[in-house]
Amino acid sequence: MSDKEGNSIEDSTVSELRDKISNDSVTARQVIASYLARIGKVETEIAAWEAFDLDFIEDQLRQLEKAPPGQSSLLFGIPVGIKDIFNTKNLPTSYGSKIYEDNQPVTDCTVVAQLRAQGAVIMGKTVSTEFAYWKAGPTRNPLNTRHTPGGSSSGSAAAVSAGMVPLAVGSQTAGSTIRPASYCGIVGFKPSIGLISLAGVKSLSNSMDTVGVFGKSVADVALLAGVLSEIYSLTDLSKPIISPKIALLRAPEWDMADDSAIQAVIDAVKIIESLGSPIRRGEVPREFTPLASVQTRIMAREAARELTHERLYNKAQLSSSLLELFEFADSISSDVYLSDRKIRDSCIAKLDDLFGGADILLAPSSLSTAPLIEEGTGSPELSRAWTMLGLPIITIPLTRDSNGLPFGLQIASRPNLDHYLLKAAAWLESLLSRKT
Amino acid sequence: MSDKEGNSIEDSTVSELRDKISNDSVTARQVIASYLARIGKVETEIAAWEAFDLDFIEDQLRQLEKAPPGQSSLLFGIPVGIKDIFNTKNLPTSYGSKIYEDNQPVTDCTVVAQLRAQGAVIMGKTVSTEFAYWKAGPTRNPLNTRHTPGGSSSGSAAAVSAGMVPLAVGSQTAGSTIRPASYCGIVGFKPSIGLISLAGVKSLSNSMDTVGVFGKSVADVALLAGVLSEIYSLTDLSKPIISPKIALLRAPEWDMADDSAIQAVIDAVKIIESLGSPIRRGEVPREFTPLASVQTRIMAREAARELTHERLYNKAQLSSSLLELFEFADSISSDVYLSDRKIRDSCIAKLDDLFGGADILLAPSSLSTAPLIEEGTGSPELSRAWTMLGLPIITIPLTRDSNGLPFGLQIASRPNLDHYLLKAAAWLESLLSRKT
Repeated sequence: MSDKEGNSIEDSTVSELRDKISNDSVTARQVIASYLARIGKVETEIAAWEAFDLDFIEDQLRQLEKAPPGQSSLLFGIPVGIKDIFNTKNLPTSYGSKIYEDNQPVTDCTVVAQLRAQGAVIMGKTVSTEFAYWKAGPTRNPLNTRHTPGGSSSGSAAAVSAGMVPLAVGSQTAGSTIRPASYCGIVGFKPSIGLISLAGVKSLSNSMDTVGVFGKSVADVALLAGVLSEIYSLTDLSKPIISPKIALLRAPEWDMADDSAIQAVIDAVKIIESLGSPIRRGEVPREFTPLASVQTRIMAREAARELTHERLYNKAQLSSSLLELFEFADSISSDVYLSDRKIRDSCIAKLDDLFGGADILLAPSSLSTAPLIEEGTGSPELSRAWTMLGLPIITIPLTRDSNGLPFGLQIASRPNLDHYLLKAAAWLESLLSRKT
Repeated sequence: MSDKEGNSIEDSTVSELRDKISNDSVTARQVIASYLARIGKVETEIAAWEAFDLDFIEDQLRQLEKAPPGQSSLLFGIPVGIKDIFNTKNLPTSYGSKIYEDNQPVTDCTVVAQLRAQGAVIMGKTVSTEFAYWKAGPTRNPLNTRHTPGGSSSGSAAAVSAGMVPLAVGSQTAGSTIRPASYCGIVGFKPSIGLISLAGVKSLSNSMDTVGVFGKSVADVALLAGVLSEIYSLTDLSKPIISPKIALLRAPEWDMADDSAIQAVIDAVKIIESLGSPIRRGEVPREFTPLASVQTRIMAREAARELTHERLYNKAQLSSSLLELFEFADSISSDVYLSDRKIRDSCIAKLDDLFGGADILLAPSSLSTAPLIEEGTGSPELSRAWTMLGLPIITIPLTRDSNGLPFGLQIASRPNLDHYLLKAAAWLESLLSRKT
């Protein structure tokens, strides 16, 4: 579907959509109809949705038409997909597990309540891996359906990539936002830890779980993050950052990466440098090198603990990968766990040593482009350490491989410098799109 | 009720109860019957229980009798009270709010699942203030029923104090474990942040919410904390600590305290010193002095966010104190909130400066003994900073005032030194009980 000027609605940015709706070029109903048509066309092949209810969408539209939520509402008529580990009172919530097939929460999680208050239309629940861990759902990568969209926020990334919604919400405990966004060629943003509420979201590892957001541009994810963090200044990227100090630090996990994934980042770095911004190359300082392993162990111990009820009462319905995680968790002694917690705390206290004067760190977003679907949802290795440290992280798409699958550039900043990171990412996005 | 030797069951320590049960001096059923008799006698006056179901208790006993959970189970037949912000699949869960009067969760929170796996008997749900914030429930202080038991874990503290259960679970975001334990003359322990799972617990302020435990001795809370953290070494306090470095640091919040509450701690300090352990006196370093205010603002912003659904859809059923909290939250600009988050992070990174070489910090547990019931549930001021910093904190009872109400000694250590703190507290408990 197109607006009065003949531009396709479902390929618009959110800011274009907001303009079109506010100047009456299209109605909210037309916007939703347009995305529904796209869903009708591609969902059979992509399988991004876990729960989808046309009546509920119609209810929301009628409510918006009857009582529009004020001029200042930031997402009036904008459809949003919600990962199925977020509780919704109008849609079932399975947490990606058969145990919760018929689960109907009684309240919306905070994120959904916030979105509805801003006039957004909850389009449906997107496929999550089992409890946001590894076992994949049916979702395929819209850029090449033989490949995984990544996980655990599989459906949210795929739905945005395929133009079924312009925005979606997911989560990240290791790499569950950055990886699928990168695999699907979109922008994924995981804010500083705690900046968006986890109330009403199924826990995987409470000390590291973070809400993540998906969109087709940095501006779009900034808008969604601004709404959900209630830090509305995040949505304004107009004031550019001036000569950010950028570093590219090789971490031990890079040894597991494809040369092509690293090369894509090095190529991007060369472009950035050629445009006048020097980038310091180096290695991750020694005390930070164990962090990916530390994250893996803390996450295992915490996941085994957060899922105690399911482990005790529903074991037969858990996947082998989850049972293996629990076995691994049981093999980690309390001494090792406590020592890991201390290493984490000590590295967080010494973040200056990691950044070494830089404000922005770069890395590949994933070890490779999206693996074939039968190989699983890919690896979060390159995001584990930064996620555990609570850094804000964003991924923007780079070039594509011969299968049409994109490489991603992972960009991080210091905790609570989310606005700075978003502005730096918008600058890099514009700079690299001019050159690539 | 008494055991074969004529000792009262409901005044036993948990370790005594475990011994009696394991050497067949009493059965689990007799233990439960004994506590039920106590409940029958005092509950009308104390009102500690929000949900209580004899059939569910009987079900649990039958299950324990039919399939006892192995010799190694740590809480076989021990009754435990659960604050009513923890989800339970066999008991309604109101979160202290009329909105959730009929709320019946479909799964147990992790803590309850862990307890049942260890053979504990869930005795019922204890009264919480509204969403673990301020609005008091009907509970009274067992030591003087004209006074508050404190909050927000009102029922858990009162139930243990009155001998209705030997152990109870609560939570702390500002001072909701330490304060009621202190007011009720029992031991309350809030472990390092994240050490016990919050899965299935209603959030008030996700970055600071911590599970807390109540018992009549340090050994009893150590046992419960060991089970819930799955760090079983915590339960063993036999190896004493050697010459702990202790400091008593006056914080600005002390100006709000009654002289008698401070004097009780100074008297305790003198006793400790007279027994050969010098204690450094000083002031909280300047950079840590704003922390109580920082905690107050972060908690307000986060509570307003965690309770978005209730705020949007159930406003008429919220108390005036909660609505005032939301108004206060709305008055805090994003810049102030982000600056507060940075202050918190920076103070956590510099904990060495707070401790100044000490391993143990002492303070009064509350500004005064328990206020009269019409004055509210008291103030958490003296625990706000330490809670936000993620420190493990414990309170042990000291002397009593003329109304029979106890003063408490608040003891903290560094994050993840929970075992050290518990051993130090056990040492102080034995030392002070000899002398007071």
